[in-house]
Amino acid sequence: MAKKKTFRPKARVPRGLRDQFAGDVMARQAALDTIRAVYDSYGFEPLETSAFEYADALGKFLPDSDRPNEGVFALRDDDDQWLALRYDLTAPLARLVAEHFDALPKPFRRYQFGPVWRNEKPGPGRYREFFQFDVDTVGAPVMAADAELCMVLSDALEALGIARGDYMVRVNNRKILNGVLETIGAAHGDDPEIAQKRLTILRAVDKLDRLGVEGVRLLLGAGRRDESGDFTEGAHLSEDQIAQVIAFIEAGDPDRAKVCATLRALVGDSAVGCEGVAELEEIDHLLSAAGFAGDRVCFDPSVVRGLGYYTGPVIEAELTFEVLDEKGNKVQFGSVAGGGRYDDLVKRFKGVEVPATGVSIGVDRLLAALRLLNSDTAQPAGPVIVLVLDAAKMGDYQKMVGELRAAGIRAELYLGGSGMRAQLKYADKRHAPIAVIAGEDEFAAGEVTLKDLLLGSRLSAEISDNKAWREDQPAQISVPRAELVAAVRDMLARDLPAV
Amino acid sequence: MAKKKTFRPKARVPRGLRDQFAGDVMARQAALDTIRAVYDSYGFEPLETSAFEYADALGKFLPDSDRPNEGVFALRDDDDQWLALRYDLTAPLARLVAEHFDALPKPFRRYQFGPVWRNEKPGPGRYREFFQFDVDTVGAPVMAADAELCMVLSDALEALGIARGDYMVRVNNRKILNGVLETIGAAHGDDPEIAQKRLTILRAVDKLDRLGVEGVRLLLGAGRRDESGDFTEGAHLSEDQIAQVIAFIEAGDPDRAKVCATLRALVGDSAVGCEGVAELEEIDHLLSAAGFAGDRVCFDPSVVRGLGYYTGPVIEAELTFEVLDEKGNKVQFGSVAGGGRYDDLVKRFKGVEVPATGVSIGVDRLLAALRLLNSDTAQPAGPVIVLVLDAAKMGDYQKMVGELRAAGIRAELYLGGSGMRAQLKYADKRHAPIAVIAGEDEFAAGEVTLKDLLLGSRLSAEISDNKAWREDQPAQISVPRAELVAAVRDMLARDLPAV
Repeated sequence: MAKKKTFRPKARVPRGLRDQFAGDVMARQAALDTIRAVYDSYGFEPLETSAFEYADALGKFLPDSDRPNEGVFALRDDDDQWLALRYDLTAPLARLVAEHFDALPKPFRRYQFGPVWRNEKPGPGRYREFFQFDVDTVGAPVMAADAELCMVLSDALEALGIARGDYMVRVNNRKILNGVLETIGAAHGDDPEIAQKRLTILRAVDKLDRLGVEGVRLLLGAGRRDESGDFTEGAHLSEDQIAQVIAFIEAGDPDRAKVCATLRALVGDSAVGCEGVAELEEIDHLLSAAGFAGDRVCFDPSVVRGLGYYTGPVIEAELTFEVLDEKGNKVQFGSVAGGGRYDDLVKRFKGVEVPATGVSIGVDRLLAALRLLNSDTAQPAGPVIVLVLDAAKMGDYQKMVGELRAAGIRAELYLGGSGMRAQLKYADKRHAPIAVIAGEDEFAAGEVTLKDLLLGSRLSAEISDNKAWREDQPAQISVPRAELVAAVRDMLARDLPAV
Repeated sequence: MAKKKTFRPKARVPRGLRDQFAGDVMARQAALDTIRAVYDSYGFEPLETSAFEYADALGKFLPDSDRPNEGVFALRDDDDQWLALRYDLTAPLARLVAEHFDALPKPFRRYQFGPVWRNEKPGPGRYREFFQFDVDTVGAPVMAADAELCMVLSDALEALGIARGDYMVRVNNRKILNGVLETIGAAHGDDPEIAQKRLTILRAVDKLDRLGVEGVRLLLGAGRRDESGDFTEGAHLSEDQIAQVIAFIEAGDPDRAKVCATLRALVGDSAVGCEGVAELEEIDHLLSAAGFAGDRVCFDPSVVRGLGYYTGPVIEAELTFEVLDEKGNKVQFGSVAGGGRYDDLVKRFKGVEVPATGVSIGVDRLLAALRLLNSDTAQPAGPVIVLVLDAAKMGDYQKMVGELRAAGIRAELYLGGSGMRAQLKYADKRHAPIAVIAGEDEFAAGEVTLKDLLLGSRLSAEISDNKAWREDQPAQISVPRAELVAAVRDMLARDLPAV
């Protein structure tokens, strides 16, 4: 048949994409179930939008060339409309709310988990497909909606096993930053010089994490030369103005009332600034009523989260435990979720403002954190594996595996074509706790042999003076065939920590 | 700021795609959890591949023009390689196995759930993004792997609540069909005439469902004229040959041994045919050993499942209960899953044959079936909703909702900006079982009012002589504030069916 030379494609996952194997998928599934239960308990409902949106609905990434590859994966549909894979879960929500506005309950409270795609340069740990878990309330003008996001995020992190003290939900309000800008005359106006100054200030503030206060101070003043010698022009604020901005970004404290008092002084009589402080005060009031103290949710004016988009409270969840960075320095793990109020987003479609607020969990980063926190937990156990030593006895092996499953024990019949040695290797690779062995001798004696595959590693972890116990635990036993299920159950029970 | 005319994109989900709201997402989630638990119990492990594959790895849809839109969504990457969204979950599995061949346990047993995309003409209920749930064993030459797929499918359907008798797993073997073709001289050879005859026969057999036996008979003979007058040329088999093929496709029976005996007679001494029958006999043996009788898994030679691809056993799961078709006729619901053995698929990459077998559940069709079966079950209950009647008391409302959640009751604080009437409407729209009402009077009296929102619909469903019970169940009660949680719990308990 094959007269022409056979084409053999190279098997490779595409650039910047990845496969996820059992351990990762199971860990993610468990985390999602936990988060979902918390979101459900707050009355949010699930939603799923399609992977594609029309490119014009996505907004900032309008295709403007024949190959619109700026940030999104886009392609032209049969009817010449541009489709793009969603790059987040907020833009599809805005589209959906605008499309179904009259039919939806208001407020519309939904969560959505799923992949998003960005056509960006991949790097280590930086994929072009990654996972977000968003929760939003659309049509809620009240600060209670923003306060609730802080609560639900905090509850979700604790439900995942992240201890209080190992995380912090930080809240800021863009209106306060605008108020501070107002008091230094950089808040409004189309004057390119003022707009440039405003942008320079925002960028400087946004760099606090990376450059520290002194770096920000330079960028707010004359400018800053980095280690490579490159110079970044500063905002040329006066000493007083710089002090004011620095006081603002350093105002964070677990005592939320204290932060509000500091901020109220800083915004002076800026109307927008006062409004922003009043909003934080309302959030503080609600958090306190609900029992969320400053050790779970604090106010931190250094939280900026990008430059556009947000119109009120801004929220960020950070993991505060220390990990080693690539240079071996201890650093805090950092942000795993963020969001805030975006009252303008639906407006793009409808012309009317629809108040909305939400947060997005970066699921991949969160899972990386959970892996670090749970590094001591064992690999999830594989199935009990029934070896196949005599093909003519396949029906008997099938019966064994069926009995185990019927008893609620995860069990697998070996389905390859190899001998006993390879089958035991396979069982190890699958992290099987037990291999069920029945060869000629066992069938003749009406028995099965159970080999405890976890015993070795478990014993080596035991303290050495536990020798007597060890000798009581043979790695391999033979039992009557009729006692298979009971014996497997006993052997599995040994895996429970010995007290 | 907005000097130029504002562009307002129309908010619309892209053509052939869809949004899925809470009811659908929750039903799917529940079904997936159930299926996953069954697959886990058999020792399969989860896997997730990326949404994209390189187009050459997908095989039959190689891009051959500048806009490769034949069946897949494809786009050219920055580095000029063609990416395509996966159109099923089998091709990515084959790529993954080829890529990681040495590292994977063999057999490699995985399940994968996820969306797949096909760039085809959308229609009613026919989307360009839909969901599959696949389970495969790669590297398993033994029939026990195919038998296991029948078992796991059958167990999964029953776990989903589909009663025995309402479904059937049908099994065929492509080798037997090839054997029958051999006996009538249409099995092998590159001779275009024979190849054409073979294709015509296969197509005819594949149309049994749609045309019935008489239609197939015509297509095996001289040809068939359909209602519109179009004529389809037949395979021009002799009467004897036609009788043989018809006997083959009509051999299906719940008595698997009987089917095997019939088929053995039909394939005569065709080596491949005998091999196919022996494989079915082995599957029968294993199914019987595991207790899966002909009322769950039967042999049905009319199951063809497409023309290429499969190399041995072919499996299809059908739901056999009757539904009304678009013309109001009773028809069986039909296929919800299918698959079989495809020993050649990994060969495309590796050059060596890797035996593999798997089945794919069409999740959307399965969910449609479950909706029909469970049409009597109520809409899942929404959260208890705490109304907001006095913005100054927001902290008090927040406390109430927090207490309810802490007691494990799904509860939501109303976060919109509307009055009481609209809030009650909102609660109805959310299927809230209870609205918690606290206005001026309640606060003054230290009470809360609970309004039972499900009572009305529940009462109207009660038999009418249950009037006394009805009068004992006021739709609205006031209780001391301290008894909020207990009273809500009592009211929710009323939803349990009265015995």
